[in-house]
Amino acid sequence: MSDPLADTARTRLRRLHDRGHFDRETIYKILDAMSLCHVGYLVDGKPAVTPTFQWREGDHVYWHGSSASRALRSSEETDVCLTVTLMDGFVLARSAFYHSANFRSVMIYGRATKIIDPEVKIQRLKNFVEALFPDRWDQLRPATTQEIKATTVLSMPIDEASAKIRTGPPGDDEDEDSAWPVWAGVIPSVLQFGEPVPAPRMGDIAVPDHVRDFSARMTK
Amino acid sequence: MSDPLADTARTRLRRLHDRGHFDRETIYKILDAMSLCHVGYLVDGKPAVTPTFQWREGDHVYWHGSSASRALRSSEETDVCLTVTLMDGFVLARSAFYHSANFRSVMIYGRATKIIDPEVKIQRLKNFVEALFPDRWDQLRPATTQEIKATTVLSMPIDEASAKIRTGPPGDDEDEDSAWPVWAGVIPSVLQFGEPVPAPRMGDIAVPDHVRDFSARMTK
Repeated sequence: MSDPLADTARTRLRRLHDRGHFDRETIYKILDAMSLCHVGYLVDGKPAVTPTFQWREGDHVYWHGSSASRALRSSEETDVCLTVTLMDGFVLARSAFYHSANFRSVMIYGRATKIIDPEVKIQRLKNFVEALFPDRWDQLRPATTQEIKATTVLSMPIDEASAKIRTGPPGDDEDEDSAWPVWAGVIPSVLQFGEPVPAPRMGDIAVPDHVRDFSARMTK
Repeated sequence: MSDPLADTARTRLRRLHDRGHFDRETIYKILDAMSLCHVGYLVDGKPAVTPTFQWREGDHVYWHGSSASRALRSSEETDVCLTVTLMDGFVLARSAFYHSANFRSVMIYGRATKIIDPEVKIQRLKNFVEALFPDRWDQLRPATTQEIKATTVLSMPIDEASAKIRTGPPGDDEDEDSAWPVWAGVIPSVLQFGEPVPAPRMGDIAVPDHVRDFSARMTK
């Protein structure tokens, strides 16, 4: 799993090479840690960026939405870029220039393919729900043919991809600026999950494990 | 400030119209609440999406980075899309179809312009630092001519923009699915800021107010 991906003109880092990672293990870990992604596609030849959820199965990444969505229709069978970012903190240095951010991000370039077979679509959607909320799918009101038809699932191989990671203290820490008399350091940040809020009319249905454990699973 | 922006073919919502917002107040509030953004641009005619920080001054949005950055060089004087997303929670419904996310997002389409005048560049960067960390700029080791030269600042008017917001319980709450016996509700999420981590060799420099108050200011 840790064979590095081939670098390409698009994934090669021009600067700060120590931040670049091309092994599948690092890339997969970031994808699996954050559902939110931003997909770039073209509308009339100009870039558009839409937030959505992604999930990974093996060496492919998936995302979905309404079949009527322009973001999805503009992404089908064409080149897109899917980017996932975890914001880990603000980095405050002694000079403005060295201020930075701690983060983990993955960019995947490729062609998005629309899944046609309804059974495959259902399986992918099930895997998405189950990855976030184990054992939930079979408890749900089953999906109707119309709902599956109204949902587009896109898939893209993780072939041309790279991770970029910054961690640690400000970069001016080791040079002459380190004596400058201003506080420097990191303000860490993390996407934190709060107490589940039951829908109205929940009656006496208890909070299931897959909801109660969610925060622990997502931040492990 | 709350005059609505004109909708265009790109910003008009095709579906779920109640989620769309075109007034500057709503758009500005989201931009001001989240520094992280994702910028979409073209590389050899294909979309790329890079995470970076944005800040707003009046009716313009700004972002910056190394002058050598391909993401910035590919964005100068050409069409880009800048998207900001706050992820507010996972929405769990009784059916897979109604699962959703609570979020606030802004998409801004436009042409990015590079700021040439070094004095204007410095002023913009100062405003960025001061917006996040009041009174910090003047405490920093002053920026050198070389550092300013090595930094590109891009600007874009907030003309063609829209916000999209989803809040509240799952959408199947009011229809017949609401009796289906599975837990439904929202798992809220928020980007949380932790205890500041001082850089090594901080000596007895105290944590300044602009760091201590950061979390309270960002989550207000």
